[in-house]
Amino acid sequence: MSAERICAVYRVRCAADTVQARAQAIALEQSVELPLAAVTDARVRERIVGRIEAIDPDVGDDDGQGGECWRVSVALAAETTGPEPGQLLNMLFGNTSLQPDVELVDAWLPASVLEAMPGPGVGIEGLRAMVGAHRRALTCTALKPQGLPPQALAELAHTFALAGIDVIKDDHGIADQAYSPFEQRVPLVQQAIERANERTGRRSVYAPSLSGGPMRLAEQLRAAHRSGVRCLLACPMVMGVAVFTELVREHGDFAILAHPALAGASRIAPALLLGRLFRLFGADAVVFPNFGGRFSYSRKTCLAIAACAREALGAHRPAMPVPAGGMRVDRVEEMLDEYGADVMLLIGGHLLEAGASTPQRAREFVERVERAGSP
Amino acid sequence: MSAERICAVYRVRCAADTVQARAQAIALEQSVELPLAAVTDARVRERIVGRIEAIDPDVGDDDGQGGECWRVSVALAAETTGPEPGQLLNMLFGNTSLQPDVELVDAWLPASVLEAMPGPGVGIEGLRAMVGAHRRALTCTALKPQGLPPQALAELAHTFALAGIDVIKDDHGIADQAYSPFEQRVPLVQQAIERANERTGRRSVYAPSLSGGPMRLAEQLRAAHRSGVRCLLACPMVMGVAVFTELVREHGDFAILAHPALAGASRIAPALLLGRLFRLFGADAVVFPNFGGRFSYSRKTCLAIAACAREALGAHRPAMPVPAGGMRVDRVEEMLDEYGADVMLLIGGHLLEAGASTPQRAREFVERVERAGSP
Repeated sequence: MSAERICAVYRVRCAADTVQARAQAIALEQSVELPLAAVTDARVRERIVGRIEAIDPDVGDDDGQGGECWRVSVALAAETTGPEPGQLLNMLFGNTSLQPDVELVDAWLPASVLEAMPGPGVGIEGLRAMVGAHRRALTCTALKPQGLPPQALAELAHTFALAGIDVIKDDHGIADQAYSPFEQRVPLVQQAIERANERTGRRSVYAPSLSGGPMRLAEQLRAAHRSGVRCLLACPMVMGVAVFTELVREHGDFAILAHPALAGASRIAPALLLGRLFRLFGADAVVFPNFGGRFSYSRKTCLAIAACAREALGAHRPAMPVPAGGMRVDRVEEMLDEYGADVMLLIGGHLLEAGASTPQRAREFVERVERAGSP
Repeated sequence: MSAERICAVYRVRCAADTVQARAQAIALEQSVELPLAAVTDARVRERIVGRIEAIDPDVGDDDGQGGECWRVSVALAAETTGPEPGQLLNMLFGNTSLQPDVELVDAWLPASVLEAMPGPGVGIEGLRAMVGAHRRALTCTALKPQGLPPQALAELAHTFALAGIDVIKDDHGIADQAYSPFEQRVPLVQQAIERANERTGRRSVYAPSLSGGPMRLAEQLRAAHRSGVRCLLACPMVMGVAVFTELVREHGDFAILAHPALAGASRIAPALLLGRLFRLFGADAVVFPNFGGRFSYSRKTCLAIAACAREALGAHRPAMPVPAGGMRVDRVEEMLDEYGADVMLLIGGHLLEAGASTPQRAREFVERVERAGSP
């Protein structure tokens, strides 16, 4: 890799007379972790030390915390990133994440970094092909609550697949607990969905949730393969982004849904982390908390996540945006208006709240999406 | 695991008339992710649903953001955690991390969770035995800047080992980059330190920095073993906490230093994350940004981290606190006064800033610590 640079943009909250020093401190912290005077090697000074590219007043600050804010652009050496996803995050925000006055709001990545990352293995088109829906938006729901035994989750999955929901995922809290071990749950749920598919002629898929360290993950992947599973749910920030990327590289035949658990609020801009970086690390679809639900992301933030997931990014496939988090069936048309047809709508709790009418509500969800067609 | 409960404490910023509803929402979000009315299974309602234990006004809020704050204590089912470090973090703060009005400030863990985690493999006593210093504080420094080739880092390590510094670690930005590949760097640095040890009669150790996904980590561990390395540096939040714990379980003969990169500021209380959880996941020593340096942790936060690392925690060994981040040799006595002798002082940049006098300043660091003895 040559002397290519990443451009990282930080939002810094400080007074005007200190921002130059603060910017310089960030540029050093995220590169050599030394005062410039202590960097004597000419090559390191020239190629490795972070450089301030720009300092601009920040006008987009809508978090209501007050105080002056600045957008500080820093050029970081691409060669410091490994190139590897964990080290990329480390170089973008590792030590600076420990400083409360700084957020990472954007990052422009050069070709060498883009090319070193896997990107989505199947992407939007692959997901569409998997479930056999080529133009309309996709539908997704979650098996919950955790604590139910495998058989109960399998029955629920059967109900959702009969209703025609495309992707039926484990709730992200469902892991490998004693009350529902992965190796027991996954074949039962998968078979239940396959039985429903035989009746409906559809191709609903199951996305079980991965958890644990490399050895446990390897066991889960073997069990998923054995059971005929074709889609997986993973939380990159819990699992470790390098583990996530290795998973994508080694198991590119699975479609992989990324969940935002532990992604924090606002320290790394959601569009950058969930939309661009998770996609770059290999997510085929990225779940995020949609506006107007249980979470507080703004409409602007949500549309920015979707834009990052689908925009041009080197040679990488687009990833499917998955707005979620307290969504309701009566919002289907509004969400399709916002996101267009290249979206997967995830509605979980609202289907279960219907109690005995859950099958009907699930069916309504599917029908409203199909009726909308390709908006 | 029985119906044991974790007690998680959240700091919530909201008005008095909404805190009950906000607390209930957190208790559901961090357990079943469903409205209570949609949880029909009696066992799940009884054993799995999170329960509000207490809501108290928060008086310790010193972050200057204003607004009313509450300490909300929620009892979470221990059996939802797996038991596994990633799932433990997921259940403590996974989805709630996406909500800007909530921080995770404390967590009491029951015996079943404590027993399921490895804790430090060697701990404070093991580190002391490794470097042959049984009463005094230990000394630590970092090889930097990144960008230097392996031979230059080895020469620097030789200098530091001749000065008698106990633990010489890679800077956390040093990974497996093309300009200093792990497999070339590690044997060179290790040999340089061993040569110095032969001259000094001391037992300085090298802690190379691990990075990457499971396969690359496995290669690095083999290279470290082959080279005779006995100590490692790892960033649990970058690597993934379950990967970190598996590393500890599979390679318990290494002493493992945990670095706080990407640990975020203030969303999870540093004493909980760095002091208690990193230790529980297997850190023998935990690096944290000391007050009065380049970072903004308060004295109270830093002493709380050290207390959590060393206090009674089931049957687990204490872990060594490692205050760092812009420390200077003239602060040695003050830091020993604060932390006592069961501490490892990490001074990096200040030694290198001395330029040609780096060997003398490193020697001064060692002598000041030895002179203080066991304060």
